[in-house]
Amino acid sequence: MAFSIQIDLDGGVTSPKGFLANGVHCGIRKNKTKKDLMLLVSETMCDAAAICTKNLVCGAPVTVTKRNLENGKARAVICNSGIANTCSADGMEKAQAMCELASAYTGVAAEDVIVGSTGVIGQPIDLVPIQNGMQSLVDGLSKDGSHAAAQAIMTTDTVEKHIAVTFPLGGKTCTIGAIAKGSGMIHPNMATMLSFITTDAAISAEMLKTALLRCADKTYHMLSVDGDTSTNDTVAIMANGLCENLRIEAENEDFQCFCSALLTVCEHIVKMLARDGEGATKLVMCEVGHAKTEEIAKMCAKSVIRSPLVKTMMFGADANCGRILCALGYAGADIDAKKIDVEYVSAKGSILVCKDGVVLDFSEEKAKEILLEDTVTVRVNLHDGEAHATAYGCDLTYDYVKINGDYRT
Amino acid sequence: MAFSIQIDLDGGVTSPKGFLANGVHCGIRKNKTKKDLMLLVSETMCDAAAICTKNLVCGAPVTVTKRNLENGKARAVICNSGIANTCSADGMEKAQAMCELASAYTGVAAEDVIVGSTGVIGQPIDLVPIQNGMQSLVDGLSKDGSHAAAQAIMTTDTVEKHIAVTFPLGGKTCTIGAIAKGSGMIHPNMATMLSFITTDAAISAEMLKTALLRCADKTYHMLSVDGDTSTNDTVAIMANGLCENLRIEAENEDFQCFCSALLTVCEHIVKMLARDGEGATKLVMCEVGHAKTEEIAKMCAKSVIRSPLVKTMMFGADANCGRILCALGYAGADIDAKKIDVEYVSAKGSILVCKDGVVLDFSEEKAKEILLEDTVTVRVNLHDGEAHATAYGCDLTYDYVKINGDYRT
Repeated sequence: MAFSIQIDLDGGVTSPKGFLANGVHCGIRKNKTKKDLMLLVSETMCDAAAICTKNLVCGAPVTVTKRNLENGKARAVICNSGIANTCSADGMEKAQAMCELASAYTGVAAEDVIVGSTGVIGQPIDLVPIQNGMQSLVDGLSKDGSHAAAQAIMTTDTVEKHIAVTFPLGGKTCTIGAIAKGSGMIHPNMATMLSFITTDAAISAEMLKTALLRCADKTYHMLSVDGDTSTNDTVAIMANGLCENLRIEAENEDFQCFCSALLTVCEHIVKMLARDGEGATKLVMCEVGHAKTEEIAKMCAKSVIRSPLVKTMMFGADANCGRILCALGYAGADIDAKKIDVEYVSAKGSILVCKDGVVLDFSEEKAKEILLEDTVTVRVNLHDGEAHATAYGCDLTYDYVKINGDYRT
Repeated sequence: MAFSIQIDLDGGVTSPKGFLANGVHCGIRKNKTKKDLMLLVSETMCDAAAICTKNLVCGAPVTVTKRNLENGKARAVICNSGIANTCSADGMEKAQAMCELASAYTGVAAEDVIVGSTGVIGQPIDLVPIQNGMQSLVDGLSKDGSHAAAQAIMTTDTVEKHIAVTFPLGGKTCTIGAIAKGSGMIHPNMATMLSFITTDAAISAEMLKTALLRCADKTYHMLSVDGDTSTNDTVAIMANGLCENLRIEAENEDFQCFCSALLTVCEHIVKMLARDGEGATKLVMCEVGHAKTEEIAKMCAKSVIRSPLVKTMMFGADANCGRILCALGYAGADIDAKKIDVEYVSAKGSILVCKDGVVLDFSEEKAKEILLEDTVTVRVNLHDGEAHATAYGCDLTYDYVKINGDYRT
């Protein structure tokens, strides 16, 4: 199965056929230059699926979205930034009211709306600015609206996150597009990682969910900025079928193509999220290879990426390999400490710093040169099998402390 | 069972009868004003026990100590700072050589020596300065040597950590003393939390181990500075029986007294470790009450203490209660999010900020005043049972990043 995936770095949720989007400033946020409300609508009904936070303290919009997706159908997304609509008294009613507002202005049934909120937890959301903003939001819906939509969900993000890919699917040309926000998985405060993905593929809700779960296991679930899991995390995908491929309803070759393309989208989004982690100066990846099982590879890769001591050493470009070994050792995975090799890799080359669990007498200068790059990979070889996994994260910096030390004021 | 425990804040490992200690600068560290080698000797053989790191990447001294304690006997401790003797090629031989050096200069059998090392992982330890330092180390052994010993194991610690308690035991007066180091559980780099505890109680090695495990479950195992678990963590206890109480060999009333006193020591040490966490400005405790089980209470308390977002908000004295709720929600424990109350408590008073899972409209000024103190408790009521637990930690500050961003240079 060979096929090519065309990547459009400037693309987004309106790249697939039949999707319109917009984002406006409606007044939930005080800063008038910051958009805070987005709408995404498909011309036709979509098969849809979502993965939501497993946090027991869960945002009201998450609960409403899950309920609305029970039948595997959706046609629109409404989402605000500024207030998370979580842990406040009438959150459910307000999340429902947002769906009804989207319905009133677009004609999409309220139960076919995916709703999201991101921002401060525990403050009540005010519906008045949302009501006031709906008309201009709907009037501005367009094929060029993906950027505005992406901007409207940004919180502590410093860059807008979007991508689209195009690929052949059953003799047709299919597109998948996405926007996302989040300076991590993981922000209970300016809460939330949100990703909205659209596609014009024809695919059943069940297969869409399978594809999303499979890709998320390798991407979203391998991302950690600070180890905190937000109350509002949501990745939602809608497929309207307008590219007219033969509808995917089983794990056939077309399904594999779709999964490959979706994985490309998810990997790109996750790298953008990690690189833009709060205060981060670099994207750090940990590739664990030759593990006994994929689960072991995942546990090890995530343990390294999550370690505050690894994260601070990456900030300092300090090649302190003992911290990598330590994080591998407490990962909770069944590994042989005497077989571990560790290598640092970046655009400046690579250097082996540990062989068979013993730290080598390597060139500190060369290692520093490699670690100073803005994309660094820690490559671990466990010499214990054939499974592998990659985790995505970033460094821990003064700015992380600054951003989170007194965020609300 | 009512009895009083006298606390001597200036006491240490030489407070119990029959223990001598010393600490010197021998040259493992370049800074000549910094002691780097300590020795602790009991006049008579001790029952002994230890709890060591579960990290699979484990320091050579940990392996040698575990082996030497297999028979439940020990009479001396030798420990250096500067180099962790971990992940280097001939670590086992060198840890063994340290035991033999201690033996040669004290007459204690090498297999009755507990050995520790703390410092950089992955660099070979040089035995020459240790050999050269042994004579002055042994010559200076004294009843006043606990402070020098405590100083010799400090790494990034900013304060010396020690305590002793005295209490009645079977008609005699028993003392337990301790020294410790570590700016956390948890330092794979300037690795390690180390605690050495001495007592003149007569108690079997088996009961000593039971007491230590029971106390550690409520203290050391509830401590987190950064979530990293060091390769060299060790808590060792030696009991020489010189207070002449009836030897404790079962879970009788004397054992309960001993456990209470040991718990007092461990709690004090753990609070000192947390307060002196790398870069920390305050001790943060999370008390979880009315949980269904103790395990649930522990999981919740540790999740709050470990959260980087809670830690940064404590640094900023920002009463952002959503982060507490979020950390409780992802703790992995079976709790009802709709029953959670949260209160902030310090010397300035207390304030309820969340009731039944809903964030209250509380006074930000009052909350800030409470959180600005250098000892802050987050009190959580789960309204779901009678179990409780406390976790110990600290805030996350610019200095944590500074200390760890480029530690070795």
